[in-house]
Amino acid sequence: MRINLALQKLEERGLECGIVLKPENIYYLTEVFPTAFAVLLLKEEPLLYLSKMDIHLVSKCKIDVDIIENFKKIHIPFKKIGIEESYMSYKFYRKKLHGKKIEDLDFIDEMRKIKDDKEIEKIKKSLKIAEKCMKEIIDLDMEGKSEKEVSAQISKCIKEKAELAFLPIVASGKNSAIPHHSPTNKRIKKKDAIIIDLGAKVGYYNSDITRTICSSPDEKFLEVYSIVVECQKAAIKECYAGNKIKNIDIKAREIFREYNLEDYFLHSCGHGIGLEVHEPPKISKNSEGILEKNMVITVEPGIYKEFGIRIEDMILVDKKPKILSKLRKLP
Amino acid sequence: MRINLALQKLEERGLECGIVLKPENIYYLTEVFPTAFAVLLLKEEPLLYLSKMDIHLVSKCKIDVDIIENFKKIHIPFKKIGIEESYMSYKFYRKKLHGKKIEDLDFIDEMRKIKDDKEIEKIKKSLKIAEKCMKEIIDLDMEGKSEKEVSAQISKCIKEKAELAFLPIVASGKNSAIPHHSPTNKRIKKKDAIIIDLGAKVGYYNSDITRTICSSPDEKFLEVYSIVVECQKAAIKECYAGNKIKNIDIKAREIFREYNLEDYFLHSCGHGIGLEVHEPPKISKNSEGILEKNMVITVEPGIYKEFGIRIEDMILVDKKPKILSKLRKLP
Repeated sequence: MRINLALQKLEERGLECGIVLKPENIYYLTEVFPTAFAVLLLKEEPLLYLSKMDIHLVSKCKIDVDIIENFKKIHIPFKKIGIEESYMSYKFYRKKLHGKKIEDLDFIDEMRKIKDDKEIEKIKKSLKIAEKCMKEIIDLDMEGKSEKEVSAQISKCIKEKAELAFLPIVASGKNSAIPHHSPTNKRIKKKDAIIIDLGAKVGYYNSDITRTICSSPDEKFLEVYSIVVECQKAAIKECYAGNKIKNIDIKAREIFREYNLEDYFLHSCGHGIGLEVHEPPKISKNSEGILEKNMVITVEPGIYKEFGIRIEDMILVDKKPKILSKLRKLP
Repeated sequence: MRINLALQKLEERGLECGIVLKPENIYYLTEVFPTAFAVLLLKEEPLLYLSKMDIHLVSKCKIDVDIIENFKKIHIPFKKIGIEESYMSYKFYRKKLHGKKIEDLDFIDEMRKIKDDKEIEKIKKSLKIAEKCMKEIIDLDMEGKSEKEVSAQISKCIKEKAELAFLPIVASGKNSAIPHHSPTNKRIKKKDAIIIDLGAKVGYYNSDITRTICSSPDEKFLEVYSIVVECQKAAIKECYAGNKIKNIDIKAREIFREYNLEDYFLHSCGHGIGLEVHEPPKISKNSEGILEKNMVITVEPGIYKEFGIRIEDMILVDKKPKILSKLRKLP
């Protein structure tokens, strides 16, 4: 059981207790996904505090559970404590842990980075649904529809078979130049570049793909499009076990630099994906660490000028990179 | 401008600088809603650090903006600092603020609790769309459809006119006994209690309403239903300016106690709503503070036994409570 490995790592670090608050981490360690605030105490006898709202989860839990009415009452009688530093609020720290020796529970991230067979299976299922919906949308005639309408249609398509990993992005024309654009009432025109970024969730595991299309592309569009494709291909080639993680992002920037486009690549080149849509490893030029077999990551270079083009696929890291998404990349 | 009031309160508290990270708070103070990580420094000359991904927002911003590639580089040369204690991660605190005098920026919450006319207008618009979609769904024959299908239909309905405040909850039969149930493939039966909890978002402002319906209700359902209606009515009566916030929740529990149902009311009675679906004031039996004119809150008592019943409406606090939602409450 994963929780035993976590306890072992806790002990190796000389920590008396770990406090796990992030629902995805609680699920990863206990197979119970809380729907309300919950606290997992990693200690010799692990204990999961659940809210009354999650009383229905008690029977599913393989470790001790306590239903608690008021989390203020939780007492943590330890001195050396592991926490999720990026997740725990300062307030929780101040109220419960001030003056104690604190360390990051980074080993949970490390564990989660490497997916086991069951996790990869769920990710593949989730990706298959995402790809099917992407294909349906790409094959549509979107002219005259609003970004919101297309986004609503994507949501409906995904929700028929899975859950939404996130609210689908549909960004057309000038809006495509905004990486995190929220769909608006803007109507899609024939010559618009349209970025579609969507993902499904199956059994708590996410997928995330992006395509950029244009029903009547001009030369400028086709030129940038082919550069982004070239860039993504080169970046994906870097996704092999043993390579430095940052080499993926560095390679992408190198390609864009050749075309004087580096300044228009506004985000990092990708991210780990699994229980969260964005999870470690982050794939940027400053990332530390080495790619390992069975990491699942996205590679998503993009250029944002007068219009935007982004292409995102999911990669299973192995001796050679395995591209999990099968969808074509023609504009 | 709100930011000037915030600066004044900062000074009153003897703080040299406030660090605002929560996007809703940044929007509240600057009218710019970041889509990526951003840092607002509240100080004599306020400064908003935005990521390159939000470069398109610069022209909309009325205070100084700095586009920053790496937030690690932000330097905070102050000793007495206000932060959002519940929002800032321990990691941010440790890296940037360790050893400094820290205080909560609770006055931003206090400001946000009281809505101005424009905010109330947006909330009303958002609620109108939510109610229209709720009505459409209630009038449907849901028998045989899956919870997911109904939820997808709600999403589509909301997204035609607004954004989703949150993923709609559709919980039928036994699932209705789970307050935060996520829609499943379970098919809805004629005798199922069905909880529908949905909300829209217009101009960043949210709505949130819940209805419980049953196309073929038995006596047990009707009995509990009428108790929840009675409870909600009594609780709403408490929503007047000058009353203690906790009296709403206490009244709801009092009514349920009369029917020996108090133990089946698994959550607090409501919450403030505005830029966030759940925002201060929390309405529980332990809440401190007084209801003030132009707070907007929800009142949502519920009973969760073999099946669940929850009814939620939005209230504008005034001399007398103003119920903003117009939708009927028949099962």
